[in-house]
Amino acid sequence: MSAKPGTLHLIPVPIAQARPDPVDVGAADGNALRVLPAATLEVARRADYFLAENAKSARAFLKSIGHPKALALLRIEQIGHAPGADRIDAWLAPLEGGKDVAPLDAALLSEAGCPGIADPGADLVARAHERAIPVVSWVGPCSIVLALMASGMNGQQFRFLGYLPQERQALRERLLAVQSDARRGETQIFIETPYRNARLFEAILAVCDPGLRLCLAIDLTGAQSLVQTRTVGQWRALPLSQRPDVDKRATVFLLHGASAPALRH
Amino acid sequence: MSAKPGTLHLIPVPIAQARPDPVDVGAADGNALRVLPAATLEVARRADYFLAENAKSARAFLKSIGHPKALALLRIEQIGHAPGADRIDAWLAPLEGGKDVAPLDAALLSEAGCPGIADPGADLVARAHERAIPVVSWVGPCSIVLALMASGMNGQQFRFLGYLPQERQALRERLLAVQSDARRGETQIFIETPYRNARLFEAILAVCDPGLRLCLAIDLTGAQSLVQTRTVGQWRALPLSQRPDVDKRATVFLLHGASAPALRH
Repeated sequence: MSAKPGTLHLIPVPIAQARPDPVDVGAADGNALRVLPAATLEVARRADYFLAENAKSARAFLKSIGHPKALALLRIEQIGHAPGADRIDAWLAPLEGGKDVAPLDAALLSEAGCPGIADPGADLVARAHERAIPVVSWVGPCSIVLALMASGMNGQQFRFLGYLPQERQALRERLLAVQSDARRGETQIFIETPYRNARLFEAILAVCDPGLRLCLAIDLTGAQSLVQTRTVGQWRALPLSQRPDVDKRATVFLLHGASAPALRH
Repeated sequence: MSAKPGTLHLIPVPIAQARPDPVDVGAADGNALRVLPAATLEVARRADYFLAENAKSARAFLKSIGHPKALALLRIEQIGHAPGADRIDAWLAPLEGGKDVAPLDAALLSEAGCPGIADPGADLVARAHERAIPVVSWVGPCSIVLALMASGMNGQQFRFLGYLPQERQALRERLLAVQSDARRGETQIFIETPYRNARLFEAILAVCDPGLRLCLAIDLTGAQSLVQTRTVGQWRALPLSQRPDVDKRATVFLLHGASAPALRH
């Protein structure tokens, strides 16, 4: 490697559709120009080499932020949902340049939210560190953080579990273990494939103790965004007509044991 | 409560000082106008009732984003580092309004980063949910997420531990337990008071196995931002002169067991 390598920039993208009326900020707004800061937008606009989970959504994103170059002139590599370990070095090679070839910067883009968080990209970033390629992460929407902030649960100790098991008995056992951790004061955060959200919500109400707090954080930054925290007992007592609809809507689930103040160190 | 209550907005603020040259975005930038998205800035500028961890830093923030009202006309309540449970209802009362008094919106501000995440505010948000006050969280910098994204470690399962014990033997035992969780594939994230960072870094190198990966994420979004992941063995072998300086600099520590691709569900 002759020259100083380029930088791998990690660029978050929106996690929800834009509101119909972008002027009204009474509720959150999923539009890229409204949920990404100036510094993040500038870095995305300056890049011309992209490593994208999905090339089509990356192009739509770059168009929405007014990338100054014609999209056809940008190099966009689709790395997919589970980037092949054997291809990572080839994707990173342009950052190291070569004989008579200047090193490029690259921008890593997810389909939604932050690269590498509940999303592919971590392996690629890990390899960049091994090759001494500088890595810089930029500010943008992260549904886990937006949900935790709005939940009113302990943000001093928390755990993101990803997906819980699907099979009924395994899910039940896992929920009991998660409840036990939540009762010790650590917030437990998990997600589900949107069409299975209603089933997971029912399972929590069926399995967990009435005193446990459950937060549903739905469609964060979107037009119909809603975050509500109640105890399992309160959720059960709520008339069905007043329950928020989680079916096929992006939802983060959070559990926390104590209604008392969060633990502090 | 006669009218629909106001909304409690959770507004992140910068986590680092601005770069000397705000035009150069080659590295990250801590300036509010550069790290907060348009939607977040607009909500902060529209609010005139603030619940602030620190009133002085809140005023500096509101000035930096060009709040349209004179600061003396804004109502800023300092809630402190550990808001008293007995005062929370009084702080939330203006959101419910009263006889002939229209309900207000409120904006909750930390000294740095996201309200309620490794920071006070969660109890206040929890009480808002109990009182059916709508809560909306807005996008901004979160050092835990920026660190995790840039670490190249598992972002599908991770845990934020807050602070580890200070006492030498207790710290050693805790690090061994944390290492054991990190080896099972869950990224372990923790912080320390900046003047104790160098001591914690040494303790990790002394206690943990050479194959464990350690990421240091220093001064995120700041002028001297640096994120590096190496194995404990590689960190030990690095000449002292090449070690990043963590002393008195905001640092997030991350541990992860496998150098292989992150676990997936």
